Amino acid sequence: MSAGPQTLADVSEGTLLARIFPFFPAGPAVAVGPGDDAAVLATGAATVATTDSMVRTRDWLDAWSTAGDVAAKLLTQNLADVAAMGAEPTAVLVSLMADPQTPAAWAVEFARALGEQATAAGVLVAGGDLSSAPDGVLMVSLTALGDLGGREPVLRSGARAGDAVAVCGTLGRSAAGLALLEAGTDPALADADLADADPAEPGAVVDGASRARDACLRHHLRPTAPLAAGPQAARAGASAMIDLSDGLLRDGSRIAAASGVRLALESALLGEDLELLARAVGDLALECVLAGGEEHSLLATFPGAVPEGWRRIGHVVAGAGVTLDGEPQTARGWDHFGGAGTVA
Amino acid sequence: MSAGPQTLADVSEGTLLARIFPFFPAGPAVAVGPGDDAAVLATGAATVATTDSMVRTRDWLDAWSTAGDVAAKLLTQNLADVAAMGAEPTAVLVSLMADPQTPAAWAVEFARALGEQATAAGVLVAGGDLSSAPDGVLMVSLTALGDLGGREPVLRSGARAGDAVAVCGTLGRSAAGLALLEAGTDPALADADLADADPAEPGAVVDGASRARDACLRHHLRPTAPLAAGPQAARAGASAMIDLSDGLLRDGSRIAAASGVRLALESALLGEDLELLARAVGDLALECVLAGGEEHSLLATFPGAVPEGWRRIGHVVAGAGVTLDGEPQTARGWDHFGGAGTVA
Repeated sequence: MSAGPQTLADVSEGTLLARIFPFFPAGPAVAVGPGDDAAVLATGAATVATTDSMVRTRDWLDAWSTAGDVAAKLLTQNLADVAAMGAEPTAVLVSLMADPQTPAAWAVEFARALGEQATAAGVLVAGGDLSSAPDGVLMVSLTALGDLGGREPVLRSGARAGDAVAVCGTLGRSAAGLALLEAGTDPALADADLADADPAEPGAVVDGASRARDACLRHHLRPTAPLAAGPQAARAGASAMIDLSDGLLRDGSRIAAASGVRLALESALLGEDLELLARAVGDLALECVLAGGEEHSLLATFPGAVPEGWRRIGHVVAGAGVTLDGEPQTARGWDHFGGAGTVA
Repeated sequence: MSAGPQTLADVSEGTLLARIFPFFPAGPAVAVGPGDDAAVLATGAATVATTDSMVRTRDWLDAWSTAGDVAAKLLTQNLADVAAMGAEPTAVLVSLMADPQTPAAWAVEFARALGEQATAAGVLVAGGDLSSAPDGVLMVSLTALGDLGGREPVLRSGARAGDAVAVCGTLGRSAAGLALLEAGTDPALADADLADADPAEPGAVVDGASRARDACLRHHLRPTAPLAAGPQAARAGASAMIDLSDGLLRDGSRIAAASGVRLALESALLGEDLELLARAVGDLALECVLAGGEEHSLLATFPGAVPEGWRRIGHVVAGAGVTLDGEPQTARGWDHFGGAGTVA
């Protein structure tokens, strides 16, 4: 064993698994959990399945994100995809692909946080995989499964002219948090206890700008998604839904393209989001709201009333693409490979 | 666009996805396929789920393996885990984590081969994920789902003294193929057409050693698993089952440990495997059969008769671990991180 911090190379796969399996509590929906060839899950007639990965240096930096932050973000981005179909997330499988020189403590803390947060979301960690990776490489991948509870899935393709366009959850905070980190803000500020800043508390230091910054940092590092709002929207008759992973304009344009309609957004309806973001990042606020990715709020269209907890940000009209106050918008936002060419 | 071969950085995620989605045919079991937030699959009351990844330089070398070889191996190792529970594989989700300088043709060929071989196995490609990775990094990850058809899963823990120990599929060929590649054998020999070497063909060049070598190379580069033998074994009353991913001794010791028994193997019952491997790799034959990984054959225990297509290689007795002709064997084989310490 090396003299420095214990690494994955110092421990066998079996001992590492024995250390992390207790973080993954079984439940009645898991007939067989980690430790056999595969997991066995109780399922309904329709199972929702999605997968998403995170790569160190591309999707997180160790200087900003702890292992627990990475677990939270990976879980949220996958569970939000399940919720965006109108389903309840039920179980996840997790893969770790790591340089053997990775500290064993990172893997253990990642697994602990994943188990804790999955349990809090009512989701079981049913299985996973460990693979060794080249020097310096650390990647995590998750597959999430969900249950539609007998409902039809809410696709991207059902929006119709006349529907309301609505959002549940925050807008632009993750992008604003990233901008703050890039400008040198200490990521530890995300851990600031909001209770300490309660203006009702005598002697509490209240600073609107710093609270806004903390909220943005926190959402970038440990995003949360309004998971219950997915099934809620489905029950309320949502005609189309998507989770905001690549930006309001890009994800909105996906609903527009799949449905053959135009989403007409109104900046006056984004006022609350813009006001908070302006306090955190000033002039960047509008761009964060329109093009900021990794937010994992839900964007949906409703033929009828917008349900409680959702707010209308525009409406669906005939046409294509996304407009803001009538002006066509480029579908800018995140693209993993960044190119624009066609595949030969 | 660069002047060299087109890379992932030259194309957008959307255009790459548009190019590869047609390789993933939908079927009645997939209500929603790739292109929405998540897939929706028809499922029974119990769904089997497993995940496994492959990392370039750790799990394959481009000098030996084509994109199609990697797709075949990734698919086989995941589907074999589903079969080892006694289930029929139904659908997979696939993730690609790639340096943007990866040739776009690699990704397209990987997806084409995956779709083709999944279809041949009766398995649907329901969804996936693309992520960019650091320079030189290329990883693929798969999650496979399966259906137990109302049967109980076959676990590792059900072997009892008196059961027969049996194998369906080859033994040691993948490890022998790897040894041949490490010794400088041309991987293209794996493509040799066996029909050309049929001894019944006049003028055919027949060489027992070269045919054995070709079979080993082929199994290492593009392993196949006896997928139908998993549900077959379950119907025949198998008491325990595992797929041989980490070696007969290591995987056998997993059944032994989970069941609280000893597997007593007999070298006389391994004669056919040893004879073929001896022609390919000489003295390495026994070690390949006992400790060779990535074979993806099925190892099971049966209280009654061993079903057709399976061959008995020993029996279950009271005790612990694995013996060969009565001699205790170290549970050697593959460990992803290679260490032996405990986790602090």
